[in-house]
Amino acid sequence: MKDLSLDVLIERAEVLIEAMPYIRKHRDGLVVIKYGGAAMTTPELKQAVVKDVAMMQMIGILPIMVHGGGKEITELQNRLGEKTTFIDGQRVTDTAALDAAEMILSGRLNGELVAALNTSGARAVGISGKGGTLLRARALKTDAGLGFVGEVEQVDATILNVLTGNGFIPVVSPLGLGADGQTYNINADTAALRIATEVKARKLIFLSDIPGILRDRDDPGSVIGTIRRDEVEPMIAEGIIQGGMIPKARAAASALDACEKVHILDGRRPHSLLLELFTDEGIGTQIVR
Amino acid sequence: MKDLSLDVLIERAEVLIEAMPYIRKHRDGLVVIKYGGAAMTTPELKQAVVKDVAMMQMIGILPIMVHGGGKEITELQNRLGEKTTFIDGQRVTDTAALDAAEMILSGRLNGELVAALNTSGARAVGISGKGGTLLRARALKTDAGLGFVGEVEQVDATILNVLTGNGFIPVVSPLGLGADGQTYNINADTAALRIATEVKARKLIFLSDIPGILRDRDDPGSVIGTIRRDEVEPMIAEGIIQGGMIPKARAAASALDACEKVHILDGRRPHSLLLELFTDEGIGTQIVR
Amino acid sequence: MKDLSLDVLIERAEVLIEAMPYIRKHRDGLVVIKYGGAAMTTPELKQAVVKDVAMMQMIGILPIMVHGGGKEITELQNRLGEKTTFIDGQRVTDTAALDAAEMILSGRLNGELVAALNTSGARAVGISGKGGTLLRARALKTDAGLGFVGEVEQVDATILNVLTGNGFIPVVSPLGLGADGQTYNINADTAALRIATEVKARKLIFLSDIPGILRDRDDPGSVIGTIRRDEVEPMIAEGIIQGGMIPKARAAASALDACEKVHILDGRRPHSLLLELFTDEGIGTQIVR
Amino acid sequence: MKDLSLDVLIERAEVLIEAMPYIRKHRDGLVVIKYGGAAMTTPELKQAVVKDVAMMQMIGILPIMVHGGGKEITELQNRLGEKTTFIDGQRVTDTAALDAAEMILSGRLNGELVAALNTSGARAVGISGKGGTLLRARALKTDAGLGFVGEVEQVDATILNVLTGNGFIPVVSPLGLGADGQTYNINADTAALRIATEVKARKLIFLSDIPGILRDRDDPGSVIGTIRRDEVEPMIAEGIIQGGMIPKARAAASALDACEKVHILDGRRPHSLLLELFTDEGIGTQIVR
Amino acid sequence: MKDLSLDVLIERAEVLIEAMPYIRKHRDGLVVIKYGGAAMTTPELKQAVVKDVAMMQMIGILPIMVHGGGKEITELQNRLGEKTTFIDGQRVTDTAALDAAEMILSGRLNGELVAALNTSGARAVGISGKGGTLLRARALKTDAGLGFVGEVEQVDATILNVLTGNGFIPVVSPLGLGADGQTYNINADTAALRIATEVKARKLIFLSDIPGILRDRDDPGSVIGTIRRDEVEPMIAEGIIQGGMIPKARAAASALDACEKVHILDGRRPHSLLLELFTDEGIGTQIVR
Amino acid sequence: MKDLSLDVLIERAEVLIEAMPYIRKHRDGLVVIKYGGAAMTTPELKQAVVKDVAMMQMIGILPIMVHGGGKEITELQNRLGEKTTFIDGQRVTDTAALDAAEMILSGRLNGELVAALNTSGARAVGISGKGGTLLRARALKTDAGLGFVGEVEQVDATILNVLTGNGFIPVVSPLGLGADGQTYNINADTAALRIATEVKARKLIFLSDIPGILRDRDDPGSVIGTIRRDEVEPMIAEGIIQGGMIPKARAAASALDACEKVHILDGRRPHSLLLELFTDEGIGTQIVR
Repeated sequence: MKDLSLDVLIERAEVLIEAMPYIRKHRDGLVVIKYGGAAMTTPELKQAVVKDVAMMQMIGILPIMVHGGGKEITELQNRLGEKTTFIDGQRVTDTAALDAAEMILSGRLNGELVAALNTSGARAVGISGKGGTLLRARALKTDAGLGFVGEVEQVDATILNVLTGNGFIPVVSPLGLGADGQTYNINADTAALRIATEVKARKLIFLSDIPGILRDRDDPGSVIGTIRRDEVEPMIAEGIIQGGMIPKARAAASALDACEKVHILDGRRPHSLLLELFTDEGIGTQIVR
Repeated sequence: MKDLSLDVLIERAEVLIEAMPYIRKHRDGLVVIKYGGAAMTTPELKQAVVKDVAMMQMIGILPIMVHGGGKEITELQNRLGEKTTFIDGQRVTDTAALDAAEMILSGRLNGELVAALNTSGARAVGISGKGGTLLRARALKTDAGLGFVGEVEQVDATILNVLTGNGFIPVVSPLGLGADGQTYNINADTAALRIATEVKARKLIFLSDIPGILRDRDDPGSVIGTIRRDEVEPMIAEGIIQGGMIPKARAAASALDACEKVHILDGRRPHSLLLELFTDEGIGTQIVR
Repeated sequence: MKDLSLDVLIERAEVLIEAMPYIRKHRDGLVVIKYGGAAMTTPELKQAVVKDVAMMQMIGILPIMVHGGGKEITELQNRLGEKTTFIDGQRVTDTAALDAAEMILSGRLNGELVAALNTSGARAVGISGKGGTLLRARALKTDAGLGFVGEVEQVDATILNVLTGNGFIPVVSPLGLGADGQTYNINADTAALRIATEVKARKLIFLSDIPGILRDRDDPGSVIGTIRRDEVEPMIAEGIIQGGMIPKARAAASALDACEKVHILDGRRPHSLLLELFTDEGIGTQIVR
Repeated sequence: MKDLSLDVLIERAEVLIEAMPYIRKHRDGLVVIKYGGAAMTTPELKQAVVKDVAMMQMIGILPIMVHGGGKEITELQNRLGEKTTFIDGQRVTDTAALDAAEMILSGRLNGELVAALNTSGARAVGISGKGGTLLRARALKTDAGLGFVGEVEQVDATILNVLTGNGFIPVVSPLGLGADGQTYNINADTAALRIATEVKARKLIFLSDIPGILRDRDDPGSVIGTIRRDEVEPMIAEGIIQGGMIPKARAAASALDACEKVHILDGRRPHSLLLELFTDEGIGTQIVR
Repeated sequence: MKDLSLDVLIERAEVLIEAMPYIRKHRDGLVVIKYGGAAMTTPELKQAVVKDVAMMQMIGILPIMVHGGGKEITELQNRLGEKTTFIDGQRVTDTAALDAAEMILSGRLNGELVAALNTSGARAVGISGKGGTLLRARALKTDAGLGFVGEVEQVDATILNVLTGNGFIPVVSPLGLGADGQTYNINADTAALRIATEVKARKLIFLSDIPGILRDRDDPGSVIGTIRRDEVEPMIAEGIIQGGMIPKARAAASALDACEKVHILDGRRPHSLLLELFTDEGIGTQIVR
Repeated sequence: MKDLSLDVLIERAEVLIEAMPYIRKHRDGLVVIKYGGAAMTTPELKQAVVKDVAMMQMIGILPIMVHGGGKEITELQNRLGEKTTFIDGQRVTDTAALDAAEMILSGRLNGELVAALNTSGARAVGISGKGGTLLRARALKTDAGLGFVGEVEQVDATILNVLTGNGFIPVVSPLGLGADGQTYNINADTAALRIATEVKARKLIFLSDIPGILRDRDDPGSVIGTIRRDEVEPMIAEGIIQGGMIPKARAAASALDACEKVHILDGRRPHSLLLELFTDEGIGTQIVR
C-alpha cells in the first residue's frame, strides 16, 4: 500500500471492512483443497493459489492441501526412458512408475508448494500420505492389473489434527502405506475426499480445469451455481453431469455426510478460492446437502 | 460484495492479499485504544471506529478500548440543574458530578460502544475500572480541590487478560476504586496509559482531534511522522510540542518502557485505525523508543 | 476477633466448625441471586447482602448477581423533568426512559454494588446484559405499547462462565441487545431466571420484600417452607399464591428444569443469604422439583 | 445449627462474616502441621485437631500433616516382649524396633488419622515418607549406635504436590528410604521441617505440649508471642530457650528461608490451629524472619 | 550387560526387539495385580514380582497393586498372645485383630513392597483403602459374626487415577472405611476386583499359588489356557472349578464387564507377570468375555 | 516368542529386566540420529536401524532422524544423462542437481524410511527441512561455485517439537529454504548438528562407516571409547583425527554446548544404536564435555 493517496487507502480499508462478515463466517473452519491440473501449471496461477491459501490461514481458516501431479510423473518416466501405460486413464503403476510418482509427488511438487507457501508468509509442512500412516492403503481391486495403484483402506487423521492444531498447513502428497509396508499411489481426488470426510472439513474444494458443472457443456457461461445432493444422480441420468465429472460429483455427494459443502472451482481463474469464500454467491458449482 | 463484476471482485481479492503482511505483523498483539473527543461525536465516525476495532479483532489483534466522555457529563449535569466547575481544565468532582460521570461513562457511553461493537460482529464486554479492581485509585494530589478526581495507585490487569484471553474486547470506563470503597473519576488518557503499560500492549493509540504532532501548528499538513522518545523533551523545549499535547507526549514517552509504539491519530478521519495498521508509513504521529 | 477472651474465641471456632458441612455442601455450586427491592434500599441491608455474597465467594461458592433498580430510574427521570408512564406496573420505555434506565442500572447501581463487593474482599466485575451479548433481546410482544421493554430471545452465558471460572462474581445489569443493535430494558426477575437456567445454577435466589410465600397473606409468620413444583399451579388456583407472586412462582417452577432449588427470601432480614445456606431448614420459601 | 432462634443464627452468621478476612489471607497457602505428643493422646483433642484441619481444607488452605508416635511404639514393643533402649532421648532402632515403628506409624496411627479426617468431611490420603521416595534417608551420623534412625538426605515433594494439587491432605508417617532399600525411622519434627522447606510452605506449625516459648519457664502465662529469627540464638545463650525447645527453635529459624512463619502451638488447647489462623494476634509463639 | 561378547549383546538386542510388539500392545493399559500367597513368601519371588512390576511401569504400563497378608497377621496376634478365630476360612475380626491387620497390612507389608519397588527404579506410593476413601465399606452381611470384616459399598478411584496419572504405582492395603469412621478389613481378592472394575483396568491379574485352573486337579500340567466367561458356571457345575477357585472364577467373570481379561497366574514361578505379558499364548489361565 | 521352552522364556524375561536401568536412564530424552552411508545400503542394515529406532520410541525415547543420500542422487542424475561435478567432495548443485536431490531425498529415501518405521510399529512422519521453515538457509559462502549448496542460517524447531510432543518420530530430509523461496541442499551432518543443538538433544548420534575414532587408523580394533571435548583439537594436531573425521569431530565438539554426548557409531554393525544405549560402556566413540 505504498504511494497511494489517502482516498485510495480509505477505499481499501473499506474493502477490508466489507470482508469482515466472511472472515467471521469461515474462521476456525477446516477446508480441504484438492489442488491439481491447470491451476498447477503456470507460475502465475500457482502464485495466486498459494497466496489465497496463505490468506486463508492468516484470517483463521485451517486449510489442508492435497495435490496431484500426473503429467510430471509421465515426463520423468519419459526422461528415464521408462514405458508408461494407462488403462482407462489410470496409470499402470509398476515399481518404476511408483518410484517416479513418489519422487515427483513427495519430492518435487510437494517441496515446491511448501516453499511457495512458507515464502508467502504461511506456515506449511509437507507430508506424504504415508506419514503417521495417514492413508492406510491396499491394492485397488480392479480387473485391470494396475499394479501399485492403491485404494484407501483407512484414514488416521491424527497427524493432520496435530499440524492444523499447531498452526501449520498440511500439504499432502497422495501416497498410501500398505499393512505390509508397500507404498501405493492414490488418486488425489479420492485422497482429498477421504481426508475431508475423516477430519469433518467444513468445505472440500476441488480446484479443477472447468468453470464448474455446466448445464450446457458447450457453454462455459452455463455454470450451475448450486446442486443439491439428491439432484446428482438424476443429473447423471440426464447426461448433464458426464465423463470425468461423474466420479467427482459422486465423491462430492458422499462427502456431504461429513462436510457442509463441496465446491468445484475453476483453478484457471486467479483467486478463485478467495472469490468463493468472500462473496455471497460464491463462484463455480457448490454441492450441498 | 454483491452485483460486482468478476474483475472488480478479483481486484478486491488482491486488496485482501496485499493486507496479508500487515495482518501477520499485528496479529496476537495487544493494542490499547484511547477513544474520545471528536471521534466520539458523529454517528459516522463512531461507526467507522467501531468497525475498525471489530476488524482488528477479526484478524487476530487483541484490542482494549478505554473511552472518555467529558462533554456528555457536563450536559447531564446541566439538565439536572447542577453547577459544574473546572480548574485548569479539570472538572471539580463533587458527589453530584461523580454520580453524573459514572452514569454517563459506565451507563450511557460504555453501553453504546458495547452495543455497536457486538452488532458489528465483534465480541465486546463493557466494564468500569472498578471491575476486578482494575484501577485502584486515590484522590489526586493537587493544590486545587478537585474532589473525587483520582489518580491511579495500582493496576490489576487480571480482568483484562481474562477477557482478551477468552476472545472479548474489554471496553473500559475510566473510574477507579479507592481502598476505602470510594469511587474516583480518572482521566481517560491516564487510564489508557497505565493500562497499556501494565498489559505491555504492543501499541497504545490515542484517537485525538488533531492530525498528529505538527511541526508548524498552523499547518495541518506538517504532521511529524515519527518522533524518537529522546526527542520529546527537546521538542517541548523548542515549543514544537505545546499545550495539551505536552502531557500526552510525555505520557507516550513513558509508555515506551512497556509498549513498542505510541500513536497519536486523527480520530476525525474515517478508518484512521486501519490506515495506521495497514500501511507501511502509517498515519498521524508515532512515538518510538 | 480482637480483645476477646480465649473462651469466646474457642466458642467462635466451634461456630466455624459447625459451618463446615454446609460449606462442603454448597462449594463449587453456581448460585444466581436476583437482588432488588427493599434489600437494596438501606445502607445496612446493602452491606449485609454484599458481605454475604463476598462470604459465599470466599468459601468456594460461585455467585452471580442480577440487580434491578426501578425506583431510582423514575427518580432520575423526575429530576430530568421527563414524564414516566406505567401500564400494568411496567414502565413504558421510550428513548428517554431507556437512557435513564441504562444510566441508573449500568452506571450508578452496578457501580455501587461492584465497589461494595470489591471493598468487602470479594472479586467482582460489573457487566451489562449487552456485554458479550449475554442477553439477546427483542421488543416484548404485548398489546400495550411498552417501547423498549425487551424479552430475552437467547442467552449466551460464555462471559459468565469466563468470569466465574476465573474467580470473579459477575454483577449483571438487566439490559439486552437486539439483533439490530437496539438496547432493551429487561425485567430483572426474568433476566435472573433465564441466566440461572442457562448456566444450570444449583440455586436461584430471589431476594424479595416478603418473608416468602405465605399460607395466610395477612400472617407473616405463615411462611410455607417448601413447595413442590407441581403444587404451584394448584396453589395459584386456590389463591394462596397471588398478585405479583404469581409470575415469580411460575418462573421458579420453570427454572427447576435446570436448577435444583429456587428460593424466595426476605431481603429485609440481615444475612438471609447465609441463613439460607448455613441452616438445615433454610429460611423463606424454597420451590423444589 | 438446629433449633436455634433466628437471633442466634444471625449472630452466628456474623461470626462467619468476621472470619472472612482470615479465610482470604490464608487460602491457597500450604501449611505443614507437625502433629504429635499430647494433642494426639485424648480422643477429644484428636477430634478437635482433625476438625480444624478439615476446616482448613474446606476454606481453601492446603494442609500437610506429619505425625509422630513415640509412646505407642514403646508400648507395642513392650507387649511383644522386646527390649527398648534410648540414648539421649533417641530410640535405639534395631530391626525389631524399626518393624514396630513402621507398624505403629504407617499402620495404626496414620490409618486412624486418615479415617478421622475423611469422616470429618476432609479428603485425606495417608502415605509413608517412603512413598514416591518422599524422604530419601541414610543412617544418622552419630557417635551413639542408633541403628536404623535416619537422617533426611533429600526430599522429593512430587507426591505431596500431586496430592495437594488434587484436593487431598497428605498425612505422612516419618519413615525414610535408603538408596539401598533400607527403611529408616526419622524424627517427626525433622521430617516436618524438611518437608515444609521443600514445598515452601507458608506456615510450619508444631503442635506441642507447651503453650509456646516462655519468658519464664515456670509461668505458663509468660508466652512470648513473636520471636524474630535473629533473636533465637541470643535467647538460647540467655537460657530463655532451653532443653528440648533448643532444636525446635533452631529448626524453626532454619525453616524461615523457605517458610513465612513457624508456629509453636499448644496442642492441648482445643482448636488451637483455628485460633492461630483466625485471630490477629494468633496464639502460642511465632518465629518470623 | 557387562563383560559380554558383542555377539551375546547383539542377541540380547534382538530379544528386546522381539519384545516390541508386546510393549506396543500393553502400553498405557491399566493392570490391577492382586499380590499375595506364595509369591509373597520368599525373598527371591518377591524380588522377581517387584522387578516385573517395575519393568511394566518402565515400558508404559500403568500397574496398580493390591496386596493381602493373612499369615503375618495371625503370626503377630500369636506373638501378642491374642486368640485368633476363623469361621469358614475367614478371620473373626475383633478390635485386636483389626489393629493387628492394619499394622501388618498398611505398616509392614505395604512399606516393604513400596521400598522394594522404589529401590528397583519404579515410582510407587503405598496407600490404604481408607486413603481418599478409596474403599467405602460396611460390615459384611453374614450369619457368622465376623466383626470388622467389611464388604465394599462403593469405590472412589480418584486417588488411583491421580497417582497413576502422575507416574506412580499405587500399592493398596485392603482396608475400608465405614461411613461412621470405622475401619474394616477387606478380602484382598475382592478389593482388587472392585478396584479393577472401577478403574476399568485392561487386565486383572491374580498371582496365586496354583498354575492356573486345571482340567485335572491332580495334574499340574493340565492348565486350561483360556476360559470364556460363559463357561465358568458350567465348569463349576462339572466340578472342574472347585473349592477356593469358585469365588475367584466368579469374581473374574463378573470383572469382565469392565476389564478385557482376567488372569490367574502362578505366583511361584519367577517372572510370571512378564511371561504373561510378553508371550502370545501367555501362561496360566485367562478368563475372557 | 513362540514355541520356546519356559526356561528360555524366563531367561528372556531376565534380559528385559536387565534392560530396565537403561530404559529409565534414556526415556524422555531427545536423540538426533544422522543416518547415512553404509548403514543405508543393505536391506538388512536398514531393517536393523529401523527396528532400533522403533524400539527407542517404544520405550519412551524421542528420536529424530536426519538422513543423507549422496549416491542415489548421482545415480539418478546419471540415468537422466545429467553431468555431475564435485569440488572438494561437495556436489556442485545446479538446478538439475537440486531437482534430483529433492526427488531422491524428500521423495524416495524419506518415503522409504517412513514406510519402514511405520511398518515396524513406530509412528513416524517424513518432512523436509523446508517444512515449517525448519532449516532457513542461504547459499554456502565459498570460493568454489557450489550453486544451491546451502548453509543453515537459522533453525525453527517448532515443527520438531510438535511432532515429538505428539508421539511422532520426525524423519528429516536435509533441504533448506532461502528467504527468497529458493531451495538449498544442505549437508546432512550439518543439518543433524544444527537440529540437535536447537532442540537441545540429549544425544547426537552419527551412524557412520567406521567403527569410531581410531587411535591407529589401520587397526579397526583401536577405537577410542571416549574423547573429552578439549582433546579434539590436540588429536587433530597429532593427526589422530584426520580426513573426513575432522569436520565431524569439530561438529561434535561444538554440539556439546547443547547436547550431553555425541556418538560416532558403526552403522555397518547391526543394532549398534541399541548396543550404545543398552550397555554401560557403549560402543563406538563418544565425545563428551
